[in-house]
Amino acid sequence: METDNRPKVEVCFSPNLYHLHKDDHEVVVVIDVLRATSAMCAAFHFGVEAMIPVLTVEEAREYQKKGFIAGAERDGQVVEGFSFGNSPFTFMQEEFKGKTVVLSTTNGTKTIQIASNANTIVIGSLLNLDILIAWLSEQKKNVLCVCAGWKDKFNLEDTICAGGIAHGLLQTGEFTSEEDSTTAAKYIFMSARDNFFGYLKHSSHRRRLQHLNIKKDIIYCLTPNQCPVIPIMKGDRLVKLDY
Amino acid sequence: METDNRPKVEVCFSPNLYHLHKDDHEVVVVIDVLRATSAMCAAFHFGVEAMIPVLTVEEAREYQKKGFIAGAERDGQVVEGFSFGNSPFTFMQEEFKGKTVVLSTTNGTKTIQIASNANTIVIGSLLNLDILIAWLSEQKKNVLCVCAGWKDKFNLEDTICAGGIAHGLLQTGEFTSEEDSTTAAKYIFMSARDNFFGYLKHSSHRRRLQHLNIKKDIIYCLTPNQCPVIPIMKGDRLVKLDY
Repeated sequence: METDNRPKVEVCFSPNLYHLHKDDHEVVVVIDVLRATSAMCAAFHFGVEAMIPVLTVEEAREYQKKGFIAGAERDGQVVEGFSFGNSPFTFMQEEFKGKTVVLSTTNGTKTIQIASNANTIVIGSLLNLDILIAWLSEQKKNVLCVCAGWKDKFNLEDTICAGGIAHGLLQTGEFTSEEDSTTAAKYIFMSARDNFFGYLKHSSHRRRLQHLNIKKDIIYCLTPNQCPVIPIMKGDRLVKLDY
Repeated sequence: METDNRPKVEVCFSPNLYHLHKDDHEVVVVIDVLRATSAMCAAFHFGVEAMIPVLTVEEAREYQKKGFIAGAERDGQVVEGFSFGNSPFTFMQEEFKGKTVVLSTTNGTKTIQIASNANTIVIGSLLNLDILIAWLSEQKKNVLCVCAGWKDKFNLEDTICAGGIAHGLLQTGEFTSEEDSTTAAKYIFMSARDNFFGYLKHSSHRRRLQHLNIKKDIIYCLTPNQCPVIPIMKGDRLVKLDY
């Protein structure tokens, strides 16, 4: 095979498969469309100053005791003792502007933790799809899109988002990919892109969330490019990338 | 949600994710299209009596010393000291008829091992797609299709085959599925089914195998329903299911 020196963009379907990919990239994009990374994008778009993603509910409680604004979500619901979870609409409220917020979620914050060895971790969702593609394409570095999934299982909405990023970068002609997971994610994005909502009608996660009456959240999270910001990890927290 | 008592058919994309699914099924279908499970189907179709899948090359050597016909493949190539690996054409030879054959392969035999807690393990490939769907639909049991992948990573050809099985069972109306991986595999099967070879043109595994000049094997493995047999695990070995 001739050598291809272009940077790669690849898709990892589950935090549980991350170890198979971990040495191949320089930038990790963490994706949890319903709803953690969408909420993070909304938060920075609406003026949150910083966000500290923590793995456990206990850590979130510790921060709460120290006076931080902290939220926690498990299984799609706000954890007892917290006033918010991962609904993007939470972070649009005036009281969050300029604040540092602590958040623990079922899948999203865990995925950030797992990828913590990466040089650069940014947050991806459909809400910041185009700006993220634009920024990544300028970096010319190997990109790995890690789908948070649902409790380590594959899910469609994260795959669609990862496939959209891969498709966008591959279209520039300046990136390449080798993995079948990337090819599959790209195919899935392409067949879903005209109607994300319809395509995901039967997805397991949407069924799960429907019981929680958060249709408004879902519609928001599945409507691309509403939040042109890139949250990036700096130390222990996410901040808004100056771009 | 109303209770749905129909048996489930689900798809697991990697042996590495098997633990997330392992308690949900009664029948496991192990799939390694290029080439282990295709070779197994060909072997039984052409008269091999039994096949002992072993995890390590050392185990294969032990059996060899005891006088068994043994083969081993690693990274697509026949291991030194063995006269065959996992090419389906090997097992069409007269000398294999009625014999018990030992085989160790990179991904396929490992996946059989991982699923060894299952009540029933059968072998799936495109070569036995329709007969397998027919038999599974009669069992009315929960089915998990486990893709062997490539070194634990997702691959397209195993996903297409698993999606074909899921699609076939769901079409009967007597099965249901919950996982997004199953939905994705079904979509991928449906978009690939008119031209497996074209669809897989860019797949990582085909690229890998092309270097080994086994185009004839690939064409054979991607041509459905040439071997209407169902290999099934009984104790330590695969035999042909009486069906």
